[in-house]
Amino acid sequence: MKIYGDNNSGNCLKVKWVCDRLALPYTWIDIDIMKGESRTPEFLEFNPWGQVPTVVLDGGRALAQSAAIIRYLGRDSDLIPQDAFAAAKMDEWLFWEQYSHEPYVAVCRFHLVYLGKDRSELDPEKVRRGYLALDHMERRLQAARFLVDTFSLADIALLAYTRLAHEGGFELGRYPSVQRWITDVEAHLGLPPTH
Amino acid sequence: MKIYGDNNSGNCLKVKWVCDRLALPYTWIDIDIMKGESRTPEFLEFNPWGQVPTVVLDGGRALAQSAAIIRYLGRDSDLIPQDAFAAAKMDEWLFWEQYSHEPYVAVCRFHLVYLGKDRSELDPEKVRRGYLALDHMERRLQAARFLVDTFSLADIALLAYTRLAHEGGFELGRYPSVQRWITDVEAHLGLPPTH
Repeated sequence: MKIYGDNNSGNCLKVKWVCDRLALPYTWIDIDIMKGESRTPEFLEFNPWGQVPTVVLDGGRALAQSAAIIRYLGRDSDLIPQDAFAAAKMDEWLFWEQYSHEPYVAVCRFHLVYLGKDRSELDPEKVRRGYLALDHMERRLQAARFLVDTFSLADIALLAYTRLAHEGGFELGRYPSVQRWITDVEAHLGLPPTH
Repeated sequence: MKIYGDNNSGNCLKVKWVCDRLALPYTWIDIDIMKGESRTPEFLEFNPWGQVPTVVLDGGRALAQSAAIIRYLGRDSDLIPQDAFAAAKMDEWLFWEQYSHEPYVAVCRFHLVYLGKDRSELDPEKVRRGYLALDHMERRLQAARFLVDTFSLADIALLAYTRLAHEGGFELGRYPSVQRWITDVEAHLGLPPTH
């Protein structure tokens, strides 16, 4: 399998982490989105939407959307709860992340780190919504070790941008349970601690 | 099962359509989001994120996020392809919809229909991205009858706001394959034709 990804993109790292965790063999092909490498004719051939991550399976079939990819790669593994309702709660977090967390927490980071903006130039509505997302995670993680009953794809997906929220200007010090969870999930994945 | 939903929300209709298609019994509880009914203490009790649709199963457990709900309700039905890769392509559409279609196509409609804005007041970037999403669907539907190999949750999820895109100011006349697909999927669901 080939993973077309950008090492600076949390969405791409989700796929890498799941492969590493499950010992799935892959070739990582670096795509620099800032240089337009996800919009070349060759890339658009297998992903007309022009986004990373995209994986190309050994038979040549392509799959995009980080959450769809990790759900596919993690099928039949312990990263998806066997209980159907618990798996649905995992999906709830995966969809919530893409709609209510990534567009704010990750996008603020993108503006500061990649577009070189200043914190005062961030869209206040994006900052407000990013904090609402972190509040929501804190509430859950005050009551439970992981987002769902057991360690799952939800933790891996949410880790990606939550651990880097400070680079988007968010003060993670307000969120002790989220910080405890970050350390815990990083250890589970064998990653060096961010904080 | 109780479905807490707003009849004007495409995200809520996705859940209703899946239940109707699969003949799953439910009680529909009207929640008027414009009156703040998804932010009352009672509602936040079972969905602290305060969004519809939310379903409460007979045992009292709650599930949110339209795509997670329909994936749960549709498990073991023919609305999810049996082949794992085809199911992953369905997921690719479900996640793409929530990240790249709904925030533009549905949000433009929300601004015109519910906030009473004029087309000239729409965010041009949202309009541009909405058209990109419709272009992407057209490209796929020129080559295939349904979004995945067979009729699936992807078609139901994408139908919800695509059929109402004109209410968001989008000219569906540019998209003959999307229009053909809308009519086809509406017929599959036994809905009166929109166009």
